[in-house]
Amino acid sequence: MSEQRLKGKRVLLTQAADYMGPATVELFAEHGAEVIADESDLTQPGAAQEIVDAAGHIDVLVANLAADARFGIMTIDTDDDVWHTAFDVMVHPLHRLCRAVLPQMYARRSGKIVVYGSATGVKSIPGSTAYSTARTAQIGYVRAVGMEAASHNVQINLVAQNFVESEAYFPLEFQKTPEFKQLLATVPIGRLATGREDALFALFLASNESDFFVGQSIPFSGGWAQ
Amino acid sequence: MSEQRLKGKRVLLTQAADYMGPATVELFAEHGAEVIADESDLTQPGAAQEIVDAAGHIDVLVANLAADARFGIMTIDTDDDVWHTAFDVMVHPLHRLCRAVLPQMYARRSGKIVVYGSATGVKSIPGSTAYSTARTAQIGYVRAVGMEAASHNVQINLVAQNFVESEAYFPLEFQKTPEFKQLLATVPIGRLATGREDALFALFLASNESDFFVGQSIPFSGGWAQ
Amino acid sequence: MSEQRLKGKRVLLTQAADYMGPATVELFAEHGAEVIADESDLTQPGAAQEIVDAAGHIDVLVANLAADARFGIMTIDTDDDVWHTAFDVMVHPLHRLCRAVLPQMYARRSGKIVVYGSATGVKSIPGSTAYSTARTAQIGYVRAVGMEAASHNVQINLVAQNFVESEAYFPLEFQKTPEFKQLLATVPIGRLATGREDALFALFLASNESDFFVGQSIPFSGGWAQ
Amino acid sequence: MSEQRLKGKRVLLTQAADYMGPATVELFAEHGAEVIADESDLTQPGAAQEIVDAAGHIDVLVANLAADARFGIMTIDTDDDVWHTAFDVMVHPLHRLCRAVLPQMYARRSGKIVVYGSATGVKSIPGSTAYSTARTAQIGYVRAVGMEAASHNVQINLVAQNFVESEAYFPLEFQKTPEFKQLLATVPIGRLATGREDALFALFLASNESDFFVGQSIPFSGGWAQ
Repeated sequence: MSEQRLKGKRVLLTQAADYMGPATVELFAEHGAEVIADESDLTQPGAAQEIVDAAGHIDVLVANLAADARFGIMTIDTDDDVWHTAFDVMVHPLHRLCRAVLPQMYARRSGKIVVYGSATGVKSIPGSTAYSTARTAQIGYVRAVGMEAASHNVQINLVAQNFVESEAYFPLEFQKTPEFKQLLATVPIGRLATGREDALFALFLASNESDFFVGQSIPFSGGWAQ
Repeated sequence: MSEQRLKGKRVLLTQAADYMGPATVELFAEHGAEVIADESDLTQPGAAQEIVDAAGHIDVLVANLAADARFGIMTIDTDDDVWHTAFDVMVHPLHRLCRAVLPQMYARRSGKIVVYGSATGVKSIPGSTAYSTARTAQIGYVRAVGMEAASHNVQINLVAQNFVESEAYFPLEFQKTPEFKQLLATVPIGRLATGREDALFALFLASNESDFFVGQSIPFSGGWAQ
Repeated sequence: MSEQRLKGKRVLLTQAADYMGPATVELFAEHGAEVIADESDLTQPGAAQEIVDAAGHIDVLVANLAADARFGIMTIDTDDDVWHTAFDVMVHPLHRLCRAVLPQMYARRSGKIVVYGSATGVKSIPGSTAYSTARTAQIGYVRAVGMEAASHNVQINLVAQNFVESEAYFPLEFQKTPEFKQLLATVPIGRLATGREDALFALFLASNESDFFVGQSIPFSGGWAQ
Repeated sequence: MSEQRLKGKRVLLTQAADYMGPATVELFAEHGAEVIADESDLTQPGAAQEIVDAAGHIDVLVANLAADARFGIMTIDTDDDVWHTAFDVMVHPLHRLCRAVLPQMYARRSGKIVVYGSATGVKSIPGSTAYSTARTAQIGYVRAVGMEAASHNVQINLVAQNFVESEAYFPLEFQKTPEFKQLLATVPIGRLATGREDALFALFLASNESDFFVGQSIPFSGGWAQ
């Protein structure tokens, strides 16, 4: 690998041990980024501001906000705890992170925010009401912030992913079941993406190759979300 | 008016004095509905369950959740209060209302939920981050619940409106300004909708004419949101 | 039925014997419309202009353009005949009809065009490339014309339907097969719509209740197209 | 430039002298592609098959189908010539190209098709009915073919662009006018993209980095199409 598409960029990555964290750390480092791989619990109100302050100069924020994969909870069984947890983990920290990091990016008229979101934010499945609603909120947030940030030459975009390899969402044991095969039949490409493939799209959105993308949420789901 | 499209239906309408409340009360009553025009403060956690319990049999829930129109607050100035208020007013009560009313509708295999939402949930404008994000969350919620409720023959759909006459959003004084004219130039139809026009669409979604609509958020914005 | 929602309106309906024709004739007549139920072959270049000229005053055009349901033809097997037929039947006549009827509507600053389109224009299925592409073109057309017509107070909108009862698309014999059951499992509502339900939505779009709808294509598919 | 993201790939590029042709030739060559820069008139029925046959092995097809930029023609003034030209240039050749190239890609279970389309296919502007309709048809086509091709491990995606530097769409003289400034005010990012920026996105879609993208049309418009 010789072309380094993030050469010299300082990247703050949240929940670095979860969801798309590990694949991102590896690929972004290969591309010359200095990755600050944070593992703080961002449900704490002050945490977002703290890690941004501690990081100093940030060229790229990767908002990797991972909830437990709790599907199969119907709307009428979605109690306040399940409901609020989805927002506390995926939605509110996203705003606190952006609010903390945008001022320095605006001042430099340069910066990128990449959000690892979900295709369930554009296409829903029964039993995921709290989760999908929070993921849809992320999409609205990215669009709204995108419109504003564009005039400061800062871009925020979202990977609306599904069917990406992940021990949390698609454990290897589950992948051996007929239920999984049935699920995969709903994905036109007929396979899971690797974490690296997913990170390659995030790399595009983190690099200056995507300067003209504004507030977009782009499906990454093998054709599942048309 | 002789055809009564909601004849004999019991309708629970929330925040009946605000937003689309008054126009809805009037039109739905003309169409034979018995409207329970509630004015409770639904930001209180137990309130949704209480008004549903008090109402008894509900054929149609009209979730009319109106926030103060506070635009012009940029993302970086959106403090925790502004942020959470948007969710406390527009998002969390929506779930609590649906959770309370769906069981009786499922039991009867019949019922409609109509949400007065916003076109800012599909198209954003600078200075409305908290508001648009909450409105987008409503859209995700309606889609998610819609998929589940369909199998119980219950329908939930959303009016994604903008540019509807309303003292809160478009005060008469504002309508005389050049700024308003400029704003209206972004609306292909070139005028505001009346509250009655808006309620006529809600009437369609509340009646059995829309039994085949599932979890949809339909723009009502004079062409503003394409 | 006493409220007549199309009272005194002259409606030109194309391909009146096919697709949504019969259900539309029946319902619109009940609502007081004078329906000109045309059955001309609109693939002939001059035909659209001729039927519009012959009809005289037209308040509502219902563009019901029905192709043979020829699914299961893969892209690489879609020869020029299959390809062009889709456009000749569904796309080109739509423009010729609108071009012929819009001037009188613009002159009166009043008029409605309702297009019976398809949800395959927003969500595709293998083996329907020519058909879905033509249906998507209709959606683009309605949006484009809608933006222009709005400034003349004329509205054009489209019913993006699927899973509506129809001998052509869902023959009764087919409805008894396991293949049909499997297909229906992809429709959250779990049933076909009746033609009358579909026509009820067209009625809404044809009436003055929908004056604020501009160039929209609205899914009518029981939740299939989210 | 040392990482060559298209190393050893044979790329067939159509209308190589027009639209995004020159920027694509330059960038793709830098990335190690062997670009067959075709300039045939693809409105001729046999032409697509001929250039594909002549090219032999094709890893990537870049369907760059450029129409004259003829805006300002209202729907009612869109005569048959303007109308059909849009389809003859942008839509029908797209199908003929794909039909010709897909069999070899299916046989190898490998291949990419990138379409330079338009954001007017998702958001319309008055005076562009024929053009926008044709561009929307391309989006439907890409979605439909994408669903099928995915099962053969072949990907087709579309760049839904607008506001990209181009002598045809934004002549330098026009860029000096107040009209242009006004137009640019509708683009959140407030500038045109360079051809190279656009080609960088096409590069992503042409490379194996985008193997999980299926039938997608992704806006590239600086936030104009939300």
